[in-house]
Amino acid sequence: MPMRQTFDETTDPSFGRQHAPLIRQAMALQGLDGFVIPHEDEYQNEYLPAANDRLAWATGFTGSAGAAVLLKDKAAIFVDGRYTLQVRDQVDTELFEVRDLVEGGVPAYLAAEAKAGWTIGYDPKLHSPDALERLRTAAATAGAALKPVQPNPLDTAWGLARPAQPQAPVTPHPAQFSGEDSAAKRERVGKSLAEQGADAALITSPASAAWLFNIRGGDVIRSPLPLSQTILAADGTARLFLDPAKVTPDLPAWLGNAVTLEPPEALAGALVDLTGQRVLVDPAESSAWFFEALERAGATVVRGADPTALPRACKNAVEIEGARQAHIRDGGALARFLRWVAVDAVRDLPGEPDVVRKLEGFREATGALKDLSFDTIAGAGPNGAIVHYRPTQRLARRLETGTLLLVDSGAQYLDGTTDVTRTVAIGEAAPEMRQRFTLVLKGHLALARVRFPAGTTGSALDALARTPLWACGLDFDHGTGHGVGSYLGVHEGPQRISKLPNTVALKPGMIVSNEPGYYKEGGYGIRIENLQVVTEPVMINGGERPMLGFETLTLAPIDRALIVVDMLTPEEHAQINAYHGRVLSVIGPTVEPDVRAWLEGACAPL
Amino acid sequence: MPMRQTFDETTDPSFGRQHAPLIRQAMALQGLDGFVIPHEDEYQNEYLPAANDRLAWATGFTGSAGAAVLLKDKAAIFVDGRYTLQVRDQVDTELFEVRDLVEGGVPAYLAAEAKAGWTIGYDPKLHSPDALERLRTAAATAGAALKPVQPNPLDTAWGLARPAQPQAPVTPHPAQFSGEDSAAKRERVGKSLAEQGADAALITSPASAAWLFNIRGGDVIRSPLPLSQTILAADGTARLFLDPAKVTPDLPAWLGNAVTLEPPEALAGALVDLTGQRVLVDPAESSAWFFEALERAGATVVRGADPTALPRACKNAVEIEGARQAHIRDGGALARFLRWVAVDAVRDLPGEPDVVRKLEGFREATGALKDLSFDTIAGAGPNGAIVHYRPTQRLARRLETGTLLLVDSGAQYLDGTTDVTRTVAIGEAAPEMRQRFTLVLKGHLALARVRFPAGTTGSALDALARTPLWACGLDFDHGTGHGVGSYLGVHEGPQRISKLPNTVALKPGMIVSNEPGYYKEGGYGIRIENLQVVTEPVMINGGERPMLGFETLTLAPIDRALIVVDMLTPEEHAQINAYHGRVLSVIGPTVEPDVRAWLEGACAPL
Repeated sequence: MPMRQTFDETTDPSFGRQHAPLIRQAMALQGLDGFVIPHEDEYQNEYLPAANDRLAWATGFTGSAGAAVLLKDKAAIFVDGRYTLQVRDQVDTELFEVRDLVEGGVPAYLAAEAKAGWTIGYDPKLHSPDALERLRTAAATAGAALKPVQPNPLDTAWGLARPAQPQAPVTPHPAQFSGEDSAAKRERVGKSLAEQGADAALITSPASAAWLFNIRGGDVIRSPLPLSQTILAADGTARLFLDPAKVTPDLPAWLGNAVTLEPPEALAGALVDLTGQRVLVDPAESSAWFFEALERAGATVVRGADPTALPRACKNAVEIEGARQAHIRDGGALARFLRWVAVDAVRDLPGEPDVVRKLEGFREATGALKDLSFDTIAGAGPNGAIVHYRPTQRLARRLETGTLLLVDSGAQYLDGTTDVTRTVAIGEAAPEMRQRFTLVLKGHLALARVRFPAGTTGSALDALARTPLWACGLDFDHGTGHGVGSYLGVHEGPQRISKLPNTVALKPGMIVSNEPGYYKEGGYGIRIENLQVVTEPVMINGGERPMLGFETLTLAPIDRALIVVDMLTPEEHAQINAYHGRVLSVIGPTVEPDVRAWLEGACAPL
Repeated sequence: MPMRQTFDETTDPSFGRQHAPLIRQAMALQGLDGFVIPHEDEYQNEYLPAANDRLAWATGFTGSAGAAVLLKDKAAIFVDGRYTLQVRDQVDTELFEVRDLVEGGVPAYLAAEAKAGWTIGYDPKLHSPDALERLRTAAATAGAALKPVQPNPLDTAWGLARPAQPQAPVTPHPAQFSGEDSAAKRERVGKSLAEQGADAALITSPASAAWLFNIRGGDVIRSPLPLSQTILAADGTARLFLDPAKVTPDLPAWLGNAVTLEPPEALAGALVDLTGQRVLVDPAESSAWFFEALERAGATVVRGADPTALPRACKNAVEIEGARQAHIRDGGALARFLRWVAVDAVRDLPGEPDVVRKLEGFREATGALKDLSFDTIAGAGPNGAIVHYRPTQRLARRLETGTLLLVDSGAQYLDGTTDVTRTVAIGEAAPEMRQRFTLVLKGHLALARVRFPAGTTGSALDALARTPLWACGLDFDHGTGHGVGSYLGVHEGPQRISKLPNTVALKPGMIVSNEPGYYKEGGYGIRIENLQVVTEPVMINGGERPMLGFETLTLAPIDRALIVVDMLTPEEHAQINAYHGRVLSVIGPTVEPDVRAWLEGACAPL
């Protein structure tokens, strides 16, 4: 059974005062005057197992990005704009000066605060080569030296209190879900290596291994990732480095003769076997240690994108059909949940944890839920305006009449990963809420219906979701869409729909979210999120060039009470009615009569 | 008086057969087995003086981008997709194999066709450092050596037949047009150098010198550029390297004591004075010769954007007001011209050259025309579908009833540069033409009315001009907008509205074109182009964040007969009527009664 969402806090602001002295003690034994603590672990993953959340243990901060520096006489924590409130809530700021992660960041701090002659340690497995280069320059500016250290003094300090490394079983992910066997994947990725002039690739992303070998694990909560590393040769053979404790009985036969299973300790030795070879490594994904180890081994490092990233992002027909089925199943749970909100919650006005549990219960009742795809965000009233909110006992609010409830949630099913946000009115919404909801909806609809030629990037489409807000002097401070895996990470590259430049074209089979929003600090939050899959190029009647487009996967009603119909163009009006018609016709037959009756009203034409 | 547009061809396909043997003779004397001929000259300009159009002299090809390679036994010419038809029309393809400039390009040709031991020559003043690096790698692949040569063997072959270098007088560009004196510009650009840690900048772009010193020249047709080079020190003093024959009596006093005027021959020696200094040079704008010369001189080269590019792009209040006045003046000429088309040309059905002359005459009659800003494109019927068309006696067509006429033109006035495209129906247009015109118009209107936050790039807005076409399976194969100078180049960076990624944010005062189109090969062409200036951020009523936007500068009616009113949203309908109302109220009072009467009809509400 999946692990149910909790509302506890896993850290508190005393962590720094408890743990920093222990780390400094270990640093002193290694002759270090400072030590850099990044959020990332050696898999450079967004989500970490508890055993690898070193930044949280050292400081109390649990955000998804950040860093800290412990000098012998002072310390600082670095977070980006999303976390400026949270960091002050979670971290003892008398101990840790709060700094901006992006502006200046760790390098500027080291350049200014390290003293000449000091030795600043870092764990080489936790930093990308580019990040390390910046740290090295900064330390040199201060006359200090940057030194790789083994063991990591924080790990020494954490000692026996550190949770064990996860050892979740790794199991086959059958062809009925993957749609392509591993040998075929390894052959085509191997060919692409040869085309780039590489003899092999070193792949350190667990999601890449999961896709390449058609396996799934459970080492990281909310993602079925098998923490592991891979060496793939251009001939399609591979070496998979995986803790033997995770190997299930079926696994060796599933992997076949062309894949050898080896323990993680064997990786360093295996790199030596690559002497004289040209080895592709992704500098955005693999830590500096791998680059240095390969160079020491006499291999030639070819810097380039993880060769599995693009093939993994472009889902095949089986995966797309799986995603459709997962969304129909999820849509049933969502219909039941939204009816419960509309009928029961508006009357009982429960707290956010009850909202989360209720939705989780409907998903569990499908009998197919493997896990949530992330902790549900249920933000009532002002909590809805906190983009990276997670309800805890301390922060949770009860629903209130006249406010909005924002629920962003998702599920992991064997056939697909879901991610959906709905914002609903609790009682009657104020005119401003309805006006802004409708602006967000207009942007969402524009990005859902757009047709575009091959070669178009997500960066080129991002503005479509924002122009209605921009026209009214409003905007939102997050990306418009991220890639989504197939029973894998709910955040997946390389495509992205964002203001930030991204040169990866949207290709058929890529699943992306479409999630514009609006947030009024201290007031309420609005977000409308569907997943949509890029469709094959087709000729439009009367047109000259094939155009790609999107098929919407998510099937759940959008709160009609929040839509100002007069603000819609005829095209938008028809589009929302058509979407609701589809939700009713597909989800209606899958739910009980009372839910269906409610759904009929929720999906009635505007 | 400006030089009137001609309809002659300046080259013919015999050029290759006449000139290639002469170049090969000069190559042989210098011991070269091959020689690379880029389109660019030492100023890396888009428009070249005739004396520097080496590619045209060697091959006959007159496009704005390209290259050729002469080997001792074969030759090739390289053009991009825009010029695949034109190159076969202008060049002897028995002598020059036609290759793609982008796919593979010159490097792939050298790698495949050069022989081991060969010496391939190049003129180091004509290649950017990045381009040269690719050539060097390619030659090495073939076992050949790349060798800088002086003199350029093509110049030797051209000999006395080569036109003289232009020596147009360089004159002050007064404060009433520039709005900021040169000392102030040099001080703030100098400060920006210091902030980047540079002691000086080497600036080789003539447009940059024109802006920095508030001077204008006439060395390049259609642009008031003074061909020259500049060394700007961080303290705001400068050395300007300019042919003494161009120096007008007022110039030295205008430049003042902080700027020394030196002949171009003194530049090489001046670089030696930069020994030990950190010198900023733009690798996209300056040839490899400068980088190598600076390094030989013991200077440290800092690669970075031309420090005048961004300040030049952001027009000040005086320049913006000048642009408005230039567009009102130009709008009068356009109204007279468009009335002539609507009343006289539809009856007489003249040829394209007469259309060009007529428009030029109306602009000359303003008494303020300094030059056209580029040769007018008047494309009747199928010629309108050739994006880079220029009418010549051989290619020109007469107007025909039932076709479209596309006219893209612009003027250089002391107070501003204009660039406008109008497409008009000659007689009654077919329904397909009207439908596609309206799609182009919808895109144009979307990009004219958009509001956007600070930081938004032209790449982020490009899709707004295309989505109506995309929705119908159509698109156009050129950028949507380019920057425009203030009595300077009609194409100016660093901003751009394009599918191509561009990381430069649109800033207040930047002038950009808005020119979506549709082209039916062999049929007709449609383009609607206005210039628009980015406005200061303002708070929108009821909004929360200041938003930038555009003020449309171009004032000329858009052919109402080509607009399908039913295809417009109410917002678009109101927008086009408001634009026409503005054209009438601003231009109407400036023109004669018969033109005004016509304008009233052309600007009547739809």
